[in-house]
Amino acid sequence: MENSNSSIEGNNLRVRKLELSDKSKGFLELLRQLTVCDSVSDKEFEDRFKEISIYGDDHVICVIEDEISGKIIASGSVFIEKKFIRKCGKVGHIEDVVVDAGSRGMQLGKKIVGFLADHARSMGCYKVILDCSDGNKVFYEKCGFKKKEIQMVKYFV
Amino acid sequence: MENSNSSIEGNNLRVRKLELSDKSKGFLELLRQLTVCDSVSDKEFEDRFKEISIYGDDHVICVIEDEISGKIIASGSVFIEKKFIRKCGKVGHIEDVVVDAGSRGMQLGKKIVGFLADHARSMGCYKVILDCSDGNKVFYEKCGFKKKEIQMVKYFV
Repeated sequence: MENSNSSIEGNNLRVRKLELSDKSKGFLELLRQLTVCDSVSDKEFEDRFKEISIYGDDHVICVIEDEISGKIIASGSVFIEKKFIRKCGKVGHIEDVVVDAGSRGMQLGKKIVGFLADHARSMGCYKVILDCSDGNKVFYEKCGFKKKEIQMVKYFV
Repeated sequence: MENSNSSIEGNNLRVRKLELSDKSKGFLELLRQLTVCDSVSDKEFEDRFKEISIYGDDHVICVIEDEISGKIIASGSVFIEKKFIRKCGKVGHIEDVVVDAGSRGMQLGKKIVGFLADHARSMGCYKVILDCSDGNKVFYEKCGFKKKEIQMVKYFV
């Protein structure tokens, strides 16, 4: 019997840029698996979507949509920082990589990170960086990353 | 005898935003104390300066100028990342903090980091983050930061 869920191996699942309509496809619910992600109104979502869109290729959020369920099952973002060091070099910063808990084992995380790193490279970045927990170190090593520094944080709220 | 170098305690030294004319005040030479920072033409510098200026308050580079020597003796940058998590929250990213080796002991680093963190807070960020070496952990703790995650990097060149 043919497997009706053709997306099970992730082969048919392509990475694409976030669209405004992804709010109704569970994009925020997916982010909620990553961290605190309160509900926002359609207007608030659209405003933020437009604010980010202004940056064009300098701030890209990508998603994977399961075309059978119509749900967003993986996402990540990258923004391009312009510097003066390294002959006016650029650095890609990867943020908010998340894969739906029910969609693990299909290499979707690797696809997302690969897409974001390729984008940073295509934008002329000399490196791409990200912060993660110790527990995710091995995953990112499989994506070609190496541990370098430590992240420090100061909360305002 | 009155100390002719009134800047020695750093009291008269104010933090201000980077200006185009800072190239001729040793800004790139200062960055070279941080990492590789090849010389760039005036045109390249101006182009990058303008590219960053487009972001307005979303990407600020600040400096401290020694008004006696006319040299830039400290610098740092912060850019504001717009997210969907945390109710369309924002995060400040601090980068490229450097103090001239001959101007240590005047709390200039703390002044720079304070300016950048205050800017992030004023922009509505819920946190500000940075990556640093283990050796700089204590300095950033004195600035109110705490260690959180690890930084992973992938180089393209």
